[in-house]
Amino acid sequence: MTHPPLALDRDGVCDYLAEVWPEAAGSFADGLVELEPGFARFVRRTGPADVRPGGTVSGPTLMHAVDEGGYALVLGHLGPAALAVTSHLSMDFLRRPTTGDLVVDVELLKLGRTQVPMAARVFVDDPGTPPVAVATIVYSRALVAGEG
Amino acid sequence: MTHPPLALDRDGVCDYLAEVWPEAAGSFADGLVELEPGFARFVRRTGPADVRPGGTVSGPTLMHAVDEGGYALVLGHLGPAALAVTSHLSMDFLRRPTTGDLVVDVELLKLGRTQVPMAARVFVDDPGTPPVAVATIVYSRALVAGEG
Amino acid sequence: MTHPPLALDRDGVCDYLAEVWPEAAGSFADGLVELEPGFARFVRRTGPADVRPGGTVSGPTLMHAVDEGGYALVLGHLGPAALAVTSHLSMDFLRRPTTGDLVVDVELLKLGRTQVPMAARVFVDDPGTPPVAVATIVYSRALVAGEG
Amino acid sequence: MTHPPLALDRDGVCDYLAEVWPEAAGSFADGLVELEPGFARFVRRTGPADVRPGGTVSGPTLMHAVDEGGYALVLGHLGPAALAVTSHLSMDFLRRPTTGDLVVDVELLKLGRTQVPMAARVFVDDPGTPPVAVATIVYSRALVAGEG
Repeated sequence: MTHPPLALDRDGVCDYLAEVWPEAAGSFADGLVELEPGFARFVRRTGPADVRPGGTVSGPTLMHAVDEGGYALVLGHLGPAALAVTSHLSMDFLRRPTTGDLVVDVELLKLGRTQVPMAARVFVDDPGTPPVAVATIVYSRALVAGEG
Repeated sequence: MTHPPLALDRDGVCDYLAEVWPEAAGSFADGLVELEPGFARFVRRTGPADVRPGGTVSGPTLMHAVDEGGYALVLGHLGPAALAVTSHLSMDFLRRPTTGDLVVDVELLKLGRTQVPMAARVFVDDPGTPPVAVATIVYSRALVAGEG
Repeated sequence: MTHPPLALDRDGVCDYLAEVWPEAAGSFADGLVELEPGFARFVRRTGPADVRPGGTVSGPTLMHAVDEGGYALVLGHLGPAALAVTSHLSMDFLRRPTTGDLVVDVELLKLGRTQVPMAARVFVDDPGTPPVAVATIVYSRALVAGEG
Repeated sequence: MTHPPLALDRDGVCDYLAEVWPEAAGSFADGLVELEPGFARFVRRTGPADVRPGGTVSGPTLMHAVDEGGYALVLGHLGPAALAVTSHLSMDFLRRPTTGDLVVDVELLKLGRTQVPMAARVFVDDPGTPPVAVATIVYSRALVAGEG
């Protein structure tokens, strides 16, 4: 499957975020380890605040990481489009994640005119291991603020 | 639809969390405003860290709030069951939430032997307004740790 | 929650379908028992072809019924819009449906410019019993054929 | 990712279905073109009854095909387990499928004790083209009939 070219490369995405969303820019500068047409890999370090009873990384932490990875891929393809928002996320948690860093691989499914659906898989530390979660995430391009 | 009785009431859930998950107990003591058979209402205050460019509460903040509301309802029905984990979450974001407090209404769909599916709606400030998001969330009861 | 008015009432939807999709018109004329702003009730009779080993109505039969109920509500609100298509369906099967007629209640969540999300519940025979399945279904309005 | 071995191979699945579900056996004998550990390919021929206004294969036809492909993979891994039922299906429709045969590729995500989650992609005619839909489907193993 051929993918459309990127509008912004990895550094372009990080520079853009430093400008429009400085609070979040650090986690992208740190975690966006790969960005190419149709694909992004985002690493999210986890700490004690992300852990639930039983020593498992919490579900919301995984969802947050998937949302960040998807946002990076959307910005890469749409260029300066900070107003794109998540319109759908569906996630299946397959295995209790042991504590470790989350590796999120995101694949572009379609660069639609209004909707950008993506598929994501989440691994702990090593993307060669079975995924701990899979997700579908859809970003919605802002045509007119408040509409859609 | 008749619901099974609660195993723990609102204060029982908060006391239990204070014991097993002190880091999270405060947000439940604060936000769990209603808990009855088959239903929980959870309020999550939002702050600057939850806001995205454009003045919208972020998707992960909404997902986190739904996950917390669902967890409270699961504990209410299962009793001391801290090891129950989210096994599925599907969320549709309907309207850009203006900044404000999130009100999450969670309804029990079934108290299954291994799976507890619930339906949730998220409002900003007032549950009489149109929901900003709807979700299905499933918690999985831990039969044996690591299994499922 | 106030809903926008209907563009076509129940008979208008059935007449329109008789014209553009005669193969399907009969099941709507038969099954669309209620259509009002923001809500449709659709009944689908089941027969031996819909049953799986164990005497359960099959999952695809339930999904089909939800899709039909959602389509009726979309046509009611959008008027002659046969080209609207399902863009997302997420369904949780809660209880093994005994054989009987399926009652699908569909609620409009938003009449968006490009996306129309709805929530559905499926009952067997009697909508006063616990639902056998819940679903979120999104129809996409055709802006330009092939786009989206 | 290594997958557990099959309990039944392709012919074993078809023979088993001929015995317990003769009404459906033909479509599997015809369409189950590949079955190996962790993967199934299922082809569903489409006809006039599957087409919607606009010349598009209907959403329920795609869902049905995914459900059949998933069922074949579940039987392959669980062996004679006709009572396994769909417990969740989430599907994103990406492109309007032109009329043609549907090719469904199903991948095992986990062979759980009670839940079997799978990821599926649907193509028209050629699995080398962009998918027209992606899905997550979960089958639930019947521990005790009516329970879960």
